Amino acid sequence: MLNLQLRSTATLLFLIFSLALAACSKQNSSADETNAIRQMLNQQVADWNKHDLDGFASGYWRSPDLVFQSGTSRTNGWDGMRDRYRNSYQSEGKEMGHLDFTNVEINVLSSDSAFVRGHWQLTMSDGKQPGGLFTLILRKFPEGWRIIHDHTS
Amino acid sequence: MLNLQLRSTATLLFLIFSLALAACSKQNSSADETNAIRQMLNQQVADWNKHDLDGFASGYWRSPDLVFQSGTSRTNGWDGMRDRYRNSYQSEGKEMGHLDFTNVEINVLSSDSAFVRGHWQLTMSDGKQPGGLFTLILRKFPEGWRIIHDHTS
Repeated sequence: MLNLQLRSTATLLFLIFSLALAACSKQNSSADETNAIRQMLNQQVADWNKHDLDGFASGYWRSPDLVFQSGTSRTNGWDGMRDRYRNSYQSEGKEMGHLDFTNVEINVLSSDSAFVRGHWQLTMSDGKQPGGLFTLILRKFPEGWRIIHDHTS
Repeated sequence: MLNLQLRSTATLLFLIFSLALAACSKQNSSADETNAIRQMLNQQVADWNKHDLDGFASGYWRSPDLVFQSGTSRTNGWDGMRDRYRNSYQSEGKEMGHLDFTNVEINVLSSDSAFVRGHWQLTMSDGKQPGGLFTLILRKFPEGWRIIHDHTS
């Protein structure tokens, strides 16, 4: 009887310990996820500045459900997004320039969702600096964090 | 001894039942949350079309951390957002017009976060129809779903 009571107490303590550990690991993981997202975005910028558009595009969810909103136009799907970038930055007479992100704010919403806002600026070979704001919504997939929705203006 | 084993079994069954119930209620709540968000947005449109700007603005998180991005300009805080709307639509020579949202897609990300994308259009008294796209990020607060970030273009 005493033995069983001890076992119950041990089980209860184990449960409390597990819950505390889970709560703690959740807190840690938010900072971990923020770092993982920051690394993914830094890789995108590095790829862009090597003029590696496919590397840059790999930060986006490879799905027909990806949505890219820019100004008043909406582009559906990963292929559409990549074609849009190719037409805008790699077609005849176009260039990719040098990309910088500033004021980047990463907000983790849950264990597998987040949003990022910030300012983008390109520096072109003629010195022109087009730029604006972006909002990204990200989901965590087995392969890592990917942009599922991009609104750029 | 048997009594204690029965109690342990009952506790286990209760735990399994509770987990199943929690999983089920989570599934139900996604549709419930989508409806709650849709109602909030419908209310915003109704308020706008009654030219009740304060009603419309009550759909936003009343916080200095609210962010409103439009084109290349960023506005911080609920007061700034409301002032921006007042200047753009209620100052001398301006009008609110009639607002319509179309292609509204509500995506629940977790039990307390969601994003919405869609198309907005105003119809002014002179027949002009300015419009564009929006991305909203929402959080569920004790008082209901509120927009914490708005990107409009």
